[in-house]
Parts: sequence; structure tokens; C-alpha cells
Amino acid sequence: MATKKIRMGMIGGGKNAFIGAIHRAAANMDGLIELVCGAFSSNAQTSIESGIALGLPENRIYASYEEMIQKESQLPSDKRMQFVSIVTPNHAHFAPAMLALENGFNVMLEKPMTFSLDEAKQLKKKVEETGLLLGLAHTYSGYPMVKQAKQMIKENVLGKIRKLYVEYPQGWLSELSEKENNKQAAWRTDPTKSGKAGAMGDIGTHAAHLAEYISGLKITKICADINTIVEGRVLDDDGSVLLKFDNGASGVLIATQVAAGEENNLRINIYGEKGGLEWHQQEPNTLLIKWKDAPAQIYRTGNGYLSSVAKHNTRTPGGHPEGYIEAFANIYRNFALTLNAKIDGETPTPEMLDFPTVDDGVRGMAFIDNVIVSGLLEKKWFDFIE
Amino acid sequence: MATKKIRMGMIGGGKNAFIGAIHRAAANMDGLIELVCGAFSSNAQTSIESGIALGLPENRIYASYEEMIQKESQLPSDKRMQFVSIVTPNHAHFAPAMLALENGFNVMLEKPMTFSLDEAKQLKKKVEETGLLLGLAHTYSGYPMVKQAKQMIKENVLGKIRKLYVEYPQGWLSELSEKENNKQAAWRTDPTKSGKAGAMGDIGTHAAHLAEYISGLKITKICADINTIVEGRVLDDDGSVLLKFDNGASGVLIATQVAAGEENNLRINIYGEKGGLEWHQQEPNTLLIKWKDAPAQIYRTGNGYLSSVAKHNTRTPGGHPEGYIEAFANIYRNFALTLNAKIDGETPTPEMLDFPTVDDGVRGMAFIDNVIVSGLLEKKWFDFIE
Amino acid sequence: MATKKIRMGMIGGGKNAFIGAIHRAAANMDGLIELVCGAFSSNAQTSIESGIALGLPENRIYASYEEMIQKESQLPSDKRMQFVSIVTPNHAHFAPAMLALENGFNVMLEKPMTFSLDEAKQLKKKVEETGLLLGLAHTYSGYPMVKQAKQMIKENVLGKIRKLYVEYPQGWLSELSEKENNKQAAWRTDPTKSGKAGAMGDIGTHAAHLAEYISGLKITKICADINTIVEGRVLDDDGSVLLKFDNGASGVLIATQVAAGEENNLRINIYGEKGGLEWHQQEPNTLLIKWKDAPAQIYRTGNGYLSSVAKHNTRTPGGHPEGYIEAFANIYRNFALTLNAKIDGETPTPEMLDFPTVDDGVRGMAFIDNVIVSGLLEKKWFDFIE
Amino acid sequence: MATKKIRMGMIGGGKNAFIGAIHRAAANMDGLIELVCGAFSSNAQTSIESGIALGLPENRIYASYEEMIQKESQLPSDKRMQFVSIVTPNHAHFAPAMLALENGFNVMLEKPMTFSLDEAKQLKKKVEETGLLLGLAHTYSGYPMVKQAKQMIKENVLGKIRKLYVEYPQGWLSELSEKENNKQAAWRTDPTKSGKAGAMGDIGTHAAHLAEYISGLKITKICADINTIVEGRVLDDDGSVLLKFDNGASGVLIATQVAAGEENNLRINIYGEKGGLEWHQQEPNTLLIKWKDAPAQIYRTGNGYLSSVAKHNTRTPGGHPEGYIEAFANIYRNFALTLNAKIDGETPTPEMLDFPTVDDGVRGMAFIDNVIVSGLLEKKWFDFIE
Repeated sequence: MATKKIRMGMIGGGKNAFIGAIHRAAANMDGLIELVCGAFSSNAQTSIESGIALGLPENRIYASYEEMIQKESQLPSDKRMQFVSIVTPNHAHFAPAMLALENGFNVMLEKPMTFSLDEAKQLKKKVEETGLLLGLAHTYSGYPMVKQAKQMIKENVLGKIRKLYVEYPQGWLSELSEKENNKQAAWRTDPTKSGKAGAMGDIGTHAAHLAEYISGLKITKICADINTIVEGRVLDDDGSVLLKFDNGASGVLIATQVAAGEENNLRINIYGEKGGLEWHQQEPNTLLIKWKDAPAQIYRTGNGYLSSVAKHNTRTPGGHPEGYIEAFANIYRNFALTLNAKIDGETPTPEMLDFPTVDDGVRGMAFIDNVIVSGLLEKKWFDFIE
Repeated sequence: MATKKIRMGMIGGGKNAFIGAIHRAAANMDGLIELVCGAFSSNAQTSIESGIALGLPENRIYASYEEMIQKESQLPSDKRMQFVSIVTPNHAHFAPAMLALENGFNVMLEKPMTFSLDEAKQLKKKVEETGLLLGLAHTYSGYPMVKQAKQMIKENVLGKIRKLYVEYPQGWLSELSEKENNKQAAWRTDPTKSGKAGAMGDIGTHAAHLAEYISGLKITKICADINTIVEGRVLDDDGSVLLKFDNGASGVLIATQVAAGEENNLRINIYGEKGGLEWHQQEPNTLLIKWKDAPAQIYRTGNGYLSSVAKHNTRTPGGHPEGYIEAFANIYRNFALTLNAKIDGETPTPEMLDFPTVDDGVRGMAFIDNVIVSGLLEKKWFDFIE
Repeated sequence: MATKKIRMGMIGGGKNAFIGAIHRAAANMDGLIELVCGAFSSNAQTSIESGIALGLPENRIYASYEEMIQKESQLPSDKRMQFVSIVTPNHAHFAPAMLALENGFNVMLEKPMTFSLDEAKQLKKKVEETGLLLGLAHTYSGYPMVKQAKQMIKENVLGKIRKLYVEYPQGWLSELSEKENNKQAAWRTDPTKSGKAGAMGDIGTHAAHLAEYISGLKITKICADINTIVEGRVLDDDGSVLLKFDNGASGVLIATQVAAGEENNLRINIYGEKGGLEWHQQEPNTLLIKWKDAPAQIYRTGNGYLSSVAKHNTRTPGGHPEGYIEAFANIYRNFALTLNAKIDGETPTPEMLDFPTVDDGVRGMAFIDNVIVSGLLEKKWFDFIE
Repeated sequence: MATKKIRMGMIGGGKNAFIGAIHRAAANMDGLIELVCGAFSSNAQTSIESGIALGLPENRIYASYEEMIQKESQLPSDKRMQFVSIVTPNHAHFAPAMLALENGFNVMLEKPMTFSLDEAKQLKKKVEETGLLLGLAHTYSGYPMVKQAKQMIKENVLGKIRKLYVEYPQGWLSELSEKENNKQAAWRTDPTKSGKAGAMGDIGTHAAHLAEYISGLKITKICADINTIVEGRVLDDDGSVLLKFDNGASGVLIATQVAAGEENNLRINIYGEKGGLEWHQQEPNTLLIKWKDAPAQIYRTGNGYLSSVAKHNTRTPGGHPEGYIEAFANIYRNFALTLNAKIDGETPTPEMLDFPTVDDGVRGMAFIDNVIVSGLLEKKWFDFIE
């Protein structure tokens, strides 16, 4: 355990923002990270009010991210923030992230990583140049039973993987909520803020990341049906994608925001030669393992029979459910542990390094590009290009 | 209630056959139908032994279906069978069905209805000519909660339908079982017995029928990924299909027989503007209705709040589960009630007429043709032709 | 398989009766039993109308059970009924059952077996004298996964049993429905028809039977809290009972008919030294087996890994749910197979003999007596007397 | 939102302790509380190492709780801890809690509150004298859907409550783990550390608190069957209790630690005249509401249709599961918000005051006393004395 807390700054996440508060709860949870500064809003007044409400001293609350990065850089190295968490809408990811990296600050970013694939690649280049850390909030891969699933596939427990189905139905954009003062809906459906894609960027990237993360496979071909279902909407709010993977497996990815009545019903099923697995985000502490000629098994978070990686990402004993914030906190914790190891001149363990990085971010932006193009094409299969 | 039992003959379904015994249990259940004769096997000795085991008199056990149809035709009208149930493999559906119709016998057929679309159309023509009944064993549409789902969509409870996902994963063909003395596997994977399609014919047609039955929509375009996963197999054992429907809705159909560890995990989710529904064949007495801004509801078989059509297809009060044989028996019962009404010169009610017919059979054979062609094409969307 | 159908007569179960139709469907299912006669109502006209609707010839429809037993006795032995199924209310079980036994007819009875424990013991004596069969409709022990559970405990898979919890909540008597023209409610809450107990007789006996059947244990001590919750009701509609078993295990039995919103939510949990099991009647094809240090397992009806006794009581392959009528039919089938074996001079197998008998009936009536007495006592533990 | 973090000290919860880490994660989560000091172990060296690992300055790490309370008292009021969280075994609750109160510190305590009922009453007296806050970690009542359940009953949505069943099966003490170096098992089964009761104190108190919290009722009579199942164990590891409530309702409480294969399978079912509810701790974001004549409803955390109290205790939108640590954090947050309000001279809102207090602690200790006595008695009903 670290003896010093890692110092975090935050960009975005002011009053009334949704995801910023989740980031802070996740960062807080393990006592490894301390919020020391922030530029919480593009509105200076809002930023200050937000920072005060969070108990920050006024001299560490900034009117803009540029000011924050500049002023923090001038603080003594044992005072200034050590990484910045960027929780703004998509179009406002790249500039602060790049500026932070250029000024020597590690970065934690909301997904999708950037507004465009090109931006993503620039960030990747900069990360490689600087050797700094860039973490990405693909929360769902932070759940312990997702780790368990990945480990079991890695150990070939299910045999060669043949089929992968992932679906992420939401219902919250079933109406034209962006016209009804729903701030979350407004920017996510606005191509100037969200990017090329709506549903595919917002949740399709989550589904794709989860699929590749658990299976260890890479998508190589896609055939996408991309739709804008709600009249008056500009970006896609729905899509279904046939998939081919690099080992010959095939599958389907579904992401829709017009499945009225669904919350965040992300589900994945993967089948190998010997058996299959099933995981549901809404009941995340259960992992079903299905066998060809034997009873299915219910793996549950917190039990002694789990892999060490699942245990590393768990805080409570069996039967005490871990949730979304814990999954999120696993990303922050692993990020902080890695950062601490680096600061201490130690080599981070594979378990510490188990958080989404700039590579996953590039992959996600490529997914958006590919899937939108495929959706427009008349031909069936489109080679996934990164 | 009928005062005379309808007299049934059976073709196929001899000793050790799987589905014949289910048909008989289903036909027996309500006391409306009596098995009076059969040609239970292409092997005369097996047919006789099977018939004796079923308690039939020897003079009503036949060595071939041709003999049965001929001899039954010569019996007095109050003795001879009134319909024939054909439970042979696919390639042996058409000939006995046609001969039965030509000789004035009504027909109940296993699905898919025939070996080819052309045969299906011939049967349809003959049914139209003769005015006889042809029922089809698309069992899953016989479940009470499927009826409830259909009724609710018909009454626009969910609003205009936008998305439909149906999946039917099985695992029993995860290995090359057809080479291991598995009789069921052997004919179902043999193109000379099964027809053009394997998984798509065996279970894809079920999924497609269920989708159209519940939604009241018709598939108009498809984009299919059809695979033969297990090495050494000839027909498809797996497929995923993007769908477009005649009202503009879209969706996905998945049918696979290599999902190791799955039994008959048929599931359907349909979403309209106001809400969605979810039904699982393996827990068939529960229908989930999901709402945009209200708690989801659990509709359960046998309760007073259900539609009259659901009640008509239920035998037990709430909390006493109905299963697969009851769903099957609903097809037989409605078929028998319709036949009785016709015999009595009465007009069958819509509830009696609620069983799959020759039209569904043609539709299913068209599905096979379309999906196999689409699977071979390089273009994405293929117009569904019937 | 039998070559001749067993001939069944029925007492009770006329038009609009609930359970009679279930008995007939169950008896019909396997083609082993044929309904040949009946006295379907104490009202002669109703009996005749019911019999005609069931397709019986008029000369086999009787105005009273006495007439039926007398006239059937006079028929040639290859014509007359071979057993009688009695599906009347509790107070009308004993007399026809005794008369049938006295006239050489085997008997299938609804539960609880009689109106009083004394009657039950008389029946038992008569069965022992005559060597005739008496079967009892404790349906829930007919489910395949209940058989599987019993077998696993018998084989000591869970180790020595320590705890057993069984609960049967229903909600249908949450109001004073017996005053609102609910025929089922009327007789079940009427001490002149139901007997000493209401809920404890109707469903408590089911729970007790299931507990003893699966565990192989006998209840030795009880401590009962028996309540009449709905004002104006005469008999108990609710009870909770602490239990001690003959091997030292302890547990709880809950039976209530005022659990508003419940259907037939019968559930049993049994724990041994090594693990536990859980079964729910409303999802009867799943049996959970829980382990101390390993993932729980989901046993499912129709799979190859099940015990032979579970398979013997199953008609469909895995993933095709069996329901309440199938469980019921298992009792009828085993009863018919046993009867056939006896007729053929063969020794019935243990699997054939696996249906509730007169001994279970006596046990159930003793349960009612004991639990009602215990409910009245001020002392905690009451020795279960049979 | 508070602008200053509440300063917390901790007693117990050193390295390798289980529940201390959970308390810290819960206290950390909302950024309202800051750990400023601790006496983490009765072993001074362990305390220091633990504190350093937590990033505390050495001068705020104490060798004993006495030292901590003394030294913290001498710090300036804007530096010293504002409350102390006591996470030691039961026998070490009272002394530090009392000393803290005597020195003007608010207290958060693990449950059961004390070693004996007498101690509990002394604490209550002291709390009343001092006007300080005492919070108690009955975590399960912190879940949002538990709040929702309580609110719905309070609003009479289910009608007058008639039946309440609560069960808490665990399996972790199925063996004599206390003899196998299991630290948690060792003290919990040791009467000198745990108190009069084992399972009844550890989890029976949770079940009783949950029952009274949700229902708003008070237990008035009990009839307990208390057992020590595992040979060689001293305290009870199992019990079942018949219950009567102050409104005339009745029910059952089950708490066992020998249910091999169970984790923390706490479940509650409550039935009123109009309907019932069901909640499972292991899937805590779902609350089933069952209706007499309508489909059951699935209430889910994070949705707009929930009560304001449920929303107040939720951090994430619907479909993003909240877990055990969030439930725990709700207690800490409400405690901190109340403390802040008091510090600011404001009246805490009912929502702030919604955490278990010294009254619940006395109630829990009374439950232990009553249930252990009842278990020893030969008479059935024992009046619950507080």
C-alpha cells in the first residue's frame, strides 16, 4: 500500500455534471488518491463554486484547464497534481489531455478517448514520447467477474473461442430528449460535441472494448447496420454489427439507446469449443460458466476459488455486492498503483497495469470510424482498419 | 368441448424417435384427439412394434405411409383417421403430406414444412384447392406468454415497434456428433435429409417465426452471416442475421448450434416507442414488460389480468408452470378445435384458428432460401423474397 | 411400454371443477391410461353432461360413485375400470376410496388423503388387506429435479443434512374470497369440507411431504404458530412451524395463503455438511447445488448428467421446460406402470413405485393433526405423533 | 454540500482486518470525510504500520485508543478528529465508545453495538446526556431499495402488514473454522469477545434490524430455536425464530452460519393486505413489488420513479449497480451530513438523520438477550423485553 496519496486534478465535473462525481467517488474509494485541484467548468464561476463545494482551497481552483496546467506546473513537485482526470464531453478531451501530457502530467480520460481517430493517434504518439501514463474509463472492464472471465479464457478453460455476442441496450434516448433540456442527451447527440457517432461512440465503444478485453481477440471485419431511429436526431442512436475476429471467431455487437425500458443492460456471451460464459453488467457479481456435458457453474465475486486477478480487483467478501463505482475504482486504483510504482522506481506488476490505456482509446476511436463507414457501405464485410 | 375425439394417424415417430413421442403427448393431453393408426417407420417391422407398444390394433398399424393413406381412405368415414401427423425428417415431409391432402386428410406437420421452398408452395396450393387444414409445429408460438406478448403488441401497448432481437443458441452440435452415432445430429446435418440449411432450418426458422408471430411484422430485408463452425460438417451450424421489417423496424436474429453449454435458450426482446418486452423459452411462464419511466412488470401465466387468448391457451392456475408439451398441445388443441368446428359446420373462432399453417410453412422455407443466399452474397442487404 | 391402456374411472372433476381437468391431462399424457367412466358430480345431471363433453358413452357415465363402483364391478374384467381417480373435496375422499378398495379397485386420490387421520388409517389398513394400489397426488414430488435432489441427498452428495427450510406462500386467500362466490375458496375454508385445517391441510401437507421426500428424513418435533389472518375466516390461512428431524437436523416450514401477490411460490432449501440445494416450484427445471468452496452448480432437467430416476421422470430434452402437468403425469405414469407390472405378474421397479402412497397420506393427515395441536399449545416443542 | 471535510479517527481496522477497510472506503467515497488519525490495533507497532500505510502523519497514529482520545482532545478544535469510527470486535466497542463520548467525540460503531445489553443502555444514556451523535453500521438498511421498501410501507402502498419473513443464511462457519486460524471465525465464536450470541449477534441482529427498519413495526414476542450445529463450537451458529409484531403481524426470522454454500444471502419478504415486497441483499438494486391482481413490478435503483429518500441514497443512474460499500457509505454520508448540519447550527433533515443510532444498538442487544433466553425456554412465546 502506498504511503503517500497520489494528487489528482480534475477538468470538468462541476456542479450537476453526472460522471465527474462518479470519478471522484471512484478515486476516493481506496484512499490512494487525493483531489488537490480542478478546473471544473468552462464557466469560471461554476468552476470556483464547484471546487469550494468539494472543499478545495481557492488557489487550487482554476478558471480554465490551461490556467490549471500552467499554474500547477509551477508548484513544487511535492505539491502539484500528479495526474489530471478529464471528464468533459468528447470534443473537450484532446486539448487538455495533450496540454497535460506536454507539461508532464499523467492523464485519466473519459471514453471515447477523443473527438476523432486522428486526435487519438496524436495522443498515443505523445504518450509514447513522454512515457507518461494515460488511463481510460472503460469502466465495465473493471468489474472483478470480467477479470475472471478474461483470465479463464486466457487459460483456455473454454477452449478455442468460436462465438461472441455482446449487446448494450439502453432506453434513455427513446425520445428526442436532447430537445427537452436533458444536458446529457444534448451533447451526446450533437456531432459538434460527441463526434462522428452517437450510440456507437457512447456505448458501442464500451461493448467493443469489453468484447476484445475479455476474449483477448481483435475484431478484423465488421458489417454494420447503423440507424437513427428517433426522428429529428442527427447522430446514430442504434446499431447492430456482425463481427469477425482474428482467430476466425464470429459474433454480433448490438448497441442501442432506443430500447425503451432498458437501463444499462450490457451483456456478453462467449462460447468456446468446451463451454461458454455469460455476464450481465446489471448483476455484475455473477459469472455463468456453461459446460457442454455438465451443470453450469455460478462464479461469484469475493470467493476463494477465483483467480488472483479477480481477487486483486475486489474489496468485499463473497455475498457483499460490488458495483459500478467499485469497477470504476479498480481503474483508478490500478492507475494509481502503477503511478506509485513508477514514482518509486519499481516495475508495476501486470495486475497494476490492468487498466485501459491510450491503445484502447485508439482502438475505440477506430471502432467508431469503421462502424460508421461500414454502416454507409453497400457491401457486407468491411475490413477493420486501425 | 368436443363430444367426439378427433382421430389421428401418425407417420414417423417410431420407437426411439424423439419428437414423435412429444407429438403424441401433446395430442393426448386434452382428451380431444385419439391416435387410431400409424406408419411409424420406413421399416415395417419397427412400425409394427411401435404401434403395438402404443396399444394400437394390428390392422391399424401400417408398413408405409402410402399403405396407411390408401387403407384408411377405404375405412368408413366414422372410423378412419381424420388427420395425419407427420413427424419424419424434413426430406420425408412433402410426399406423405401431399398424398394425405390428395386423399382428403388434414395434416399436421413438423417444421420446417418441407425440404424445399418449391415443395412448400405446392403444399400451399393443394391446401387452398382442397380446403383442408394444415398445421405446423412451430411449438414456441404455442406458449401462453407468447400469445400475451403478441396480443399486447397488437393492442399497441408498446407503441410502434422499433427493434426486435431474437436469438436461439443451442450447444448440442458443438462437436461433430453426426459422426458419433447421434441419430438426431445425423439427419439434421445431412443435406439430403435436412435440406439447404442446418441450424437455419432447424432453429433459425423457429426464431424467425416467433419474431414475426409476436411482432405482427414481416421481415423484408436480411443480411446474413452463415457459418459452418465445426470442421467436417456440411451444412451451416451457426448464423447471425441483420433484419429489416415492413414497418421500418430493424433487428437481429441469431441461431447457432455450437454455443457450447446452451440448451434451447431461445429469447426474444422487442422494443416499441413506449416500452419493451422480453421472453425466454426456458422460463416460458414469465413475460417481462419494460417501461420507459415506470417499473418493469412481470406478467405470469395463469393470472386473471392476462388477455383472453393467453387464458385460452393455459390449463393451470398461476404459479403452476406450463411447459413445452403444453405449448405443443396448444397447437394440437387449436387444430382439433378448428377441425371439430368445421366438422360441425361451425365457423372456427380466431382463438381456434391460432395455430401455424401452411402459410407459415411457406414463410419458413422462404426464410431458409433467403438466408442461405444472403449468406453467400457480398452485398449487405438482400430483399426477402417469398 | 404397456401394450394395453389402463382403464381409469373418475369421481368428481365435473364441468368447472379445477383439479379434475389437470388429473385427466396428466393421465392422458403418456398414452398409458384411458378414461372409461366417471361419476363427475354429486349432481347427476352435471355428471352426465360432463361425461358427454369428455366423449364417454352414456352407459359409462354414472349419477353417483356408488352406482359407478357397483356397475363397473359387474362389467367383464377386460372392460371395467382398473382404478378410480378421486378428485372431490377432502370430505368426500374416504367413502368412495373405501368403497372402491372394498370392490377391488385401485385408487388414485387427491391430497390431503382424507378428512381425518382416523379415516386415513382405515384406508391404510384396507390397502394392506387388499394389496391394492393407492396413489396420492402430491404433485410436487413428481418433478424431475425434485427426484434429482432426493437422489443426490440419498447418495450423500451434500453430506449429513443439517438444515431444511421449506416455504409455500400463496396469496389467493388474502381476502375473504369464500364469501365472494369463489368455489375453490369456499370448500377449502369450510371445516365441514376441508377438515381440521385450512392452509396447513391444503399446502402445508405439500410442503411437509416435499421436505420429507427430498431429505429422506422424518419430522419428529414441531413448534407451530397457526393463524387465521383474514377476519371472518374459520380455518387457519397461515402458519409457520419450527421443525426437528430424526437425524437431528432442524428447520422451518412456512405455509400461508395470505401472502398477497404470491402464486404457488413453493421453495425448498436443504443444507448438509458439504453443500446445499435450492429448488423453486415456479421454475422447476432448475436445481441449484451450492458448495462450500466451489461455484454453485445449476442442474437442469433433461441433461445427460442427471440421475436415472430424474431421466425416468422426464419427457423432453434439456431446455424444453417440463411443467406442473408433467409432474402430475409422472405420478400417474408411475402408478400405471406399477399397475401394469402387477397385472403382468412382474415386480415393479423402484422407479415405477416412486409415487406417493397411502403411507404418505397417513403421514400428511398426521401432519395436520400435529400442527393444529401444536398451534394451540403453550409449550414450544411437540412430539410429532403418527 | 459541505465545504469542509469531517475529520475521522479510527479505532481498530489495522492491517489484515476485514471490516476496517470497508469502513474507510465507505467514509472516503463521497469526499465528505477525511481520516486524520487512528489507533488501528491493540498492538502499537501494528497500529503505526497500519497508519503509515494509510498515509497518516506519525503524530496522528496512536498506540492505543486511550492515547488517541486524550491527545486528540488536546488538539485545536479545527484540527482534532470530529468523530471516531470503532471497528474492533464486539467486546472492545463499549470502552472506547464511552471514552470518546465522555471526551466530546461523536462515534460510529460496528454492530452489534456492545458486548452486553447493559453496556448498550449505558451508551444510550451517555448519548442522551451529551447530545453527541452515535451511528451504527447496520449496513443493509443503507441500500437505496431498502429505503424505497420502507417508504412504500410507510405510505401504506401494501396495506396493513400481515406477514414478514427475513432470512440470513451464511455458510462460512459450516466447519470449525475457528480452530483453523481463521481470525474472523475465532473472535466471532468466542463468548469472551463476541458476547452471549454467535450467529444471532453477528447476523441475527442484522436481520432483526432490517425487518423492523423496513416494516416500521416492532417485534413483541418471539419463539426461538437456537442451535450450535458444528461440534466443538461454543456459541450458537444457527437459529430460527417465530415472530409477533406490535400491529399483530407475524413472521419468521432465520439466521444461520452453517448453510454450506451460502454467502450473505439475506432476503426479506413482507406481505400486506394489498401486496408484498421482496428484496435480496445479493442483488440489492432490485425490489420486487407483488400485487394481488396485477403483474408484479421490478423497482430498480436509480430510476426517476423512486422516492426521494431512495434517490438521496443513490450515486449512479439506473442500471449502474450500487453495492455494499455504497450502502455503507450512505450511513457515513448521512452521519456526516447530520454532523455538518449540527456544526453549522442547522437542523438536520429527516434524510440526513436516516442512519442507525444508539436506539437501534440497544434494540439489537435486546434482540440478542431475548432470543438467547427464548431459545432456552420450554414455553413457546416469550415477550420481547427491551
